Order: sequence, then structure tokens, then C-alpha cells
Amino acid sequence: MNHPAQPGSLKKPLPEMLLPALESVFGDRLSTTQAMREHHGSDESSYDPMLPDAVVFAQSTDEVAAAVKLCNEYDVPVIPYGAGTSLEGHVLALQGGVTIDLSQMNNVVAIHAEDLTATVQAGVTRKQLNQEIKDTGLFFPIDPGADASLGGMAATRASGTNAVRYGTMRENVLALTVVTSDGRTIRTGTRAKKSSAGYDLTRVFVGSEGTLGVITEVTVKLYPQPEAISAAVCSFPSASDAVNAVIQTIQMGVPIARVEFLDENGVKAINAHDKLGLPEKPLLLFEFHGSEHGVKEQAELVQDIAAEHNATGFEWATHPEDRSRLWAARHNAYFALLQMRPGYRSITTDCCVPISQLAECILETKADCEKNGMIYSIIGHVGDGNFHVLMMIDPHDPAEVGKAEGINNRMVARAIAMDGTCTGEHGVGLHKMDFLIQEHGEDAIGTMRAIKHALDPKNIMNPGKIIRW
Amino acid sequence: MNHPAQPGSLKKPLPEMLLPALESVFGDRLSTTQAMREHHGSDESSYDPMLPDAVVFAQSTDEVAAAVKLCNEYDVPVIPYGAGTSLEGHVLALQGGVTIDLSQMNNVVAIHAEDLTATVQAGVTRKQLNQEIKDTGLFFPIDPGADASLGGMAATRASGTNAVRYGTMRENVLALTVVTSDGRTIRTGTRAKKSSAGYDLTRVFVGSEGTLGVITEVTVKLYPQPEAISAAVCSFPSASDAVNAVIQTIQMGVPIARVEFLDENGVKAINAHDKLGLPEKPLLLFEFHGSEHGVKEQAELVQDIAAEHNATGFEWATHPEDRSRLWAARHNAYFALLQMRPGYRSITTDCCVPISQLAECILETKADCEKNGMIYSIIGHVGDGNFHVLMMIDPHDPAEVGKAEGINNRMVARAIAMDGTCTGEHGVGLHKMDFLIQEHGEDAIGTMRAIKHALDPKNIMNPGKIIRW
Repeated sequence: MNHPAQPGSLKKPLPEMLLPALESVFGDRLSTTQAMREHHGSDESSYDPMLPDAVVFAQSTDEVAAAVKLCNEYDVPVIPYGAGTSLEGHVLALQGGVTIDLSQMNNVVAIHAEDLTATVQAGVTRKQLNQEIKDTGLFFPIDPGADASLGGMAATRASGTNAVRYGTMRENVLALTVVTSDGRTIRTGTRAKKSSAGYDLTRVFVGSEGTLGVITEVTVKLYPQPEAISAAVCSFPSASDAVNAVIQTIQMGVPIARVEFLDENGVKAINAHDKLGLPEKPLLLFEFHGSEHGVKEQAELVQDIAAEHNATGFEWATHPEDRSRLWAARHNAYFALLQMRPGYRSITTDCCVPISQLAECILETKADCEKNGMIYSIIGHVGDGNFHVLMMIDPHDPAEVGKAEGINNRMVARAIAMDGTCTGEHGVGLHKMDFLIQEHGEDAIGTMRAIKHALDPKNIMNPGKIIRW
Repeated sequence: MNHPAQPGSLKKPLPEMLLPALESVFGDRLSTTQAMREHHGSDESSYDPMLPDAVVFAQSTDEVAAAVKLCNEYDVPVIPYGAGTSLEGHVLALQGGVTIDLSQMNNVVAIHAEDLTATVQAGVTRKQLNQEIKDTGLFFPIDPGADASLGGMAATRASGTNAVRYGTMRENVLALTVVTSDGRTIRTGTRAKKSSAGYDLTRVFVGSEGTLGVITEVTVKLYPQPEAISAAVCSFPSASDAVNAVIQTIQMGVPIARVEFLDENGVKAINAHDKLGLPEKPLLLFEFHGSEHGVKEQAELVQDIAAEHNATGFEWATHPEDRSRLWAARHNAYFALLQMRPGYRSITTDCCVPISQLAECILETKADCEKNGMIYSIIGHVGDGNFHVLMMIDPHDPAEVGKAEGINNRMVARAIAMDGTCTGEHGVGLHKMDFLIQEHGEDAIGTMRAIKHALDPKNIMNPGKIIRW
């Protein structure tokens, strides 16, 4: 699939002096091979790769600062790269430049179990963090599905299945270490749980997708592992019934930890992929956290609500292995769907609306997919009003791409008209830049642009993403 | 008490054309009387008033925009004013200018009970909002004590007693309407619960204390009124015991709704003010929200923890009127203390530290107050690691001011050394500008300054607050 940005015209040749200068810092952790550049020039979106001129593997904040200083000196783009799991073209090197791969910055810097915080280098993934804190009785809840890096999760303001209870990266990052566009290193906050001390730099950088600076360390909140966890699954005759059950659950204030919707297409795909034998109807997958009694109380309440909305086949998964199997299947949905149409790619989009609008937004989007004969699934973190549309397309067939983009455009327009947002958790990248204007209006975009110009006056930080210069 | 900023030298005469231009917009809602200017040139801090040249009472976002446009045209400072309850000199007109009083913008614009959101004009106070949504079964939890306006609460990133459970304004504001320094009007977000759509403008303005724009509307999250609420109070032989009980409660993840600490001086003051007859020892005041059973479970757990830390006199207040009486007394602590030394003012400061450091930070600060013979109380939202020191001083006695400032300086240095913050919820105003540098470092302050310069290039928005130009 081609890039709307027509990047060829923007790409400048790399200044001759830069590579030797980078090599003196990174040695053999500098690479300019085609394979390495291709790997770093693409993500999970359906865009064709756009290659950086070079890739460096940083092992410390100081190395990131050195690389950024050099790029700043030579006016060369800098693209931060974590686990490469983004979905909207975030890491594509539209104008070439140097990709800073942070995956080797994978040390947990400090665990303060007594304060329920941890500080990690940006390349630490969520699974790694949870592994390393397992014995403390704490966990880090944010779970976007992919085993993303915490730096990347902060940069895209990621969330996922647990956000309905624990919030998103917006709520769970306490502080960041950031290398700014001129190569200075700042810390944006402290480990205090709250603060009124000046502008909220942490949240300026959370969600900035590498366009304002490179996140090199992340301090996050941790939570005590709940005394009891249980999960349940049930099926509904229609998507509308399922979503209305969720709306009622949220409106009643049930402190549910997870509630995931899969349409019948999603269920079919994970059945095929994980041999689950679930009824191939719209499905909700719940998880409850709390005390033994609290979990039971929540679950009974939710079961009653679901029954009112024609739920059938309520099944419990109280054993950790059953729960893991269900959640693994949920997280595999993306790959399971890709396997339904081998060789194709997925255009994966998301939006988020006020909860009362969710059923209407999903149903209209579903009808649009059906009408256009799309191979698709709708899957969602529905407790937050957030859902995804995964559309399987041949990225080199302009007709299919056009159809999928049309569905995407109409879904976003629908969400914005409902006072919702063009992306709940995937971010803007280069795919949703026009939607961002549609959502915020030119004046608010002007305010964003003023911030970009102030913090990255040379436009070297992941240029061409979020907003046009 | 004098201002460190020596503002006399900064004040320019008001351009002749401005007042008639403002009058054509505001008519008799423009005032230049001494009394009105004095009222608007002071807050609850111990600073002497600094008067604006004029005060306008806005009734709409468009009127605010008109006033800001005029001030921008004539390079005149703009100071937004809500309820005047700030504590660090936020609303003082250091360089004169025009104060925009937003108290007449007191309409609830929309209640979306089905989405758990409300949108209000900036002058709506928290009590008014809760009154207006009473019949929906929902409530707005953020409670800084004073009946502050929601615009002001957003501007100072306020929080208060309920933040331990429900978060602060940082977590609870979904979107703002803001008039920018050039008089444009932007909306910073939507009613979607989460979003990854571009820079987080909402949180750029939350906590910006009027220095980046004027907040004219606020969209906040609401919560279902809990099925059950109970409150309890108990006393401890020492501050250390009380705080350690809190630390353990938080570390165990008890979802407590409120936990307030009052030292023996605070208890004495509210006893005298509200005739409560509480034991004059360090005290914790708890509130539990949840299901009937959940509340009971939490309360029993907390009672056990408190007992381990030598608590005595555990008393329950399950009747709403008993609860209200206790919380009213807590909220009156500031005024009760002022009455202990009539004619004096309070220097009221706050800080916030990681929870494990809280006992040490409070005890050292307490010892410092004692050593300096200060008439004081330490009171805190201790579940967040946040506490206040209220010091009763004669603001015109330099020796007393000096002592109090010394205690404040050392408390802040202590908090910062513990990786905490110089203010948990009061904000920077003009009193904590140097502490802000101490906390964040010059490079991070430089990033804040770049944002200020970008969004307020003429330095007309509440100049002289948060950071020096």
C-alpha cells in the first residue's frame, strides 16, 4: 500500500560526515544493511516499508542523546523504534534518516514495590516487566495485546484490555526520561502519585509518537495482584445485545477489569486458530479482579445483566490456565484473522466513542463492512467505548484499499459526530493525520503545531507524523 | 507579605483605548473600582493584594475571547479568576492588567448521565455541579475542600480528599474549551473515555494556571454514587503510627475512597471550632465506597491494620449526617486553625512523596515546625503521599515569615530528595517558582518555557506565574 505523503520528494541524501560520527559512538551497533533498514522501516500497518538510511542500537540514554545531537547538527530525521508493533505507520522513515532502535535498552532500572512503582528503560516490554516483578506481588496492567515496549506504549498512549479498570498509559506513567530534539536529557516528573508542579511534560510526551523527543526511560504505576481473579465468556444472538449488556454494566459502575467484544467473524477466526469450539456468535469475554467475595458479587451482577440481554452459554474460567487460554486466543485474533486470508494484510483501525453511542457506532460500521463485502472482524475494548475494525485486504489492489479506506473514513466520521475520537489507542501515525484535523479543528491543530515547532524547531523528530509541518 | 517578584517595576500603564473597548463588550460588567480590584487581586495566600487595572465579568466563551483579543492587541496581561480560593498567589495581578472573572459563567452545559460525563462552564463550582446532578445517581468526586470553580480546579490540577480513589483533575477532565492567547477558541478533547489522537492538549492546559490560555468550559467524568458508604475515625499515639497504618493500607491495595490525616494540632483546632470532642491525638479519617459487603470488608481490613499500628477509639459514622459533620470539620480545619490565632494569616504549603517516604517526610517536617516554635498543623491526603503544612503567621513580621519560609524550603527540599514533588495539588503560582526549577532542573524548565513562549508569545497570560519568561 502506498503512502499518502509521497515521501520520495522529501528525502534528502545523508550528510557524508554523519555515518562516521555515528560509528564512533555505536561501533558495530550501527547498521546500514538493506535487511536491517527494511526491518526498521515497517510496522504492523499495511504500508510498504519506508527505509531509514541507517539504524543504531542504543544501550543508554547518553547514546540516544549523542545520536540525536548528531542528527540535530546535520538536520537529519530521527525515528525512535521499540518493538515495531505499531499499526498506523508510526516508525516508517518517510524522509529517511536514522532509526534509533531501543530494544537493547531493556533493563529494569528500579522496582519500588513499597511505592507501587517501577522505572524501566524504554525497550523493556510489558511481558518482561511483569516477569521481573512477579515475586513482588505486584503487576503492570496495561496490555495492548502485542508485547510492545514500554517506551513505544508511552509514545502511542497505548492501552488495551485492562484499561477499563486501570486506565491507559496516560494515567499510568508517572515520569519519563526524554531526549529532546537538541540532544538534552530531561526528566518529566517524579515518583509522587500526583503533582501540580508546572506544565504536565509527562503527558506532553505520552502520545507524541516520537515527534517531540525520544523516550528513553519510563516510570509507571504498579498494582497489587488481586486476591481473586475470574474470567467468564458468554455468547449473544446479536452484536447489539452484547454491546448493550456492556453499556449497562458500565453505567452501573461495576468495577470490571476487562470486557472484550468479538463479533462472529472474530470468534470463527480464533476457533480455527486456537481450536476453542466457542459458539460462532458475538461474544463477550469478562475478567473480574477483587476480593473473593467482591469478584463473586461482580460476576453475579454481570451475569444477570448479560442474561437480560439474551446471553447464552455463560462459562467460567477460574483456573489460571483456562483464563490464559482465553486471553491468548483474544490476543491472537489479529493473527488468526490474517490466517483466514493468507498472503493478505490487515488494515486495522480503531475509534472510541462515549459509551451510550457504542452500539450504534459498531452496528453501523458492521453494516458498512457487510455492504462492501469486506472480510473483516470487529473486536473491542468495549467497556471504554473503544473498538477495532480489522479488514483483510490485498494492499496492492487499489479497489480493495479504497473500499477499506472508505469504511475507515465513515467510521471515523461517525465516531467524531458522536463526540468521540478518531483513535482510542492506536495513535495517528501517518494514516490518521486528516482525521486529526477533522476531530480537533484547525485552531486546535494550530496549537499542537505550535508545540511541535517549539520543541522540534528543525522538524527532525519522526517528521511527517501526527501533524503536517 | 511582600512578593518576591517586586512587581512594581513591571507594571505598565493601561493603554487608553482598552477600557472603552472592553466597556463596549461588557457594559456595566466592567469594573475599575478599588474594592473590586482589591477583591480580585488576592487569594487565600498570605500575600498582600496586587491589583489588576480592571475586572470584567464574562458570561460566555465569546466574551472571554473578545476580552483576550483586546488584551492581546494592546499587550495587556489577562488573569483568569474563578472562586479566588487558590493558595500560592495564582490570581495576583503582578503586572496589573485585566482580570476576567468567570463566576457568572455558571451554567451546567450538558449532563450525559448515560455516558457518565458532564460539561460545565468554568465558573460552576463543585458543590453546584453535585447539586445539579444529584437526581441522576451520579456524582463528581474531586473535592479540594474549598468550593472551588471547576475552571480553577482544572487550571491548578486540583485534587483533594477523594483523589486516592478517583484521581485528580488530571485524570478526570476529558476535554476543555480554552481561549488561547490570541483570542481563538479551541476544544482540547472529546467525550471519549480515552484517545490517542495527537498531543494531549487537555493535559497541557490542566495545571497551566492561566498562563497558556483561559479555560471557559470543562468536561469531566462522573461516577455512580456508591451503593454503600461508611466513614470511620480513629486516633493514634503518634503521627508515625497513623502514617504507617496508611502506608500499609495503600500497599495492600485496599480501594479506600478517602483517608485523611490530622495531627494533634489540627484535631484541637476542629474540636474548638466544631465542638467535636475528638481525642486530641493524631487522627485518621477514613471513607469506604462500594457494595454493602465490599465496604464492610474494606473497613474490617483497615480496622485490623490500624489496630496493628496502635489505633484506639475506632468509631463508625454510617449515617450520612455523622459523615457530613466529620467531613465538614475536616474541611473547616483551615479556618479553624486561623481562628486559633485571630488576625493572623496562614502560609499553607503542600508536597507529595512516594508513599513509603511519607512517614519520614511528615515527621521531619513536624520536628522542624516544633523546633522553630511555629503555630502549625500538618494535615494530609495521606493515601496519595500528599500533605499540607498550615503555619499561622503575622504576614508583616519578617522574622515569622522567614521562619515559615525556611520550614517550607526544607520540606520541599526533603520531598524532592525523596523523588517527590514540590506541590501535590496547590500549584506553583508565584510562590513555588524556584522550587519548580529545583524539582525539574533547568533543561526541563526550558522545555516548559518553550511551550509558554509558543502558546503565549507576548507573555500576556497570567504573567509571572509558574516560570519566569
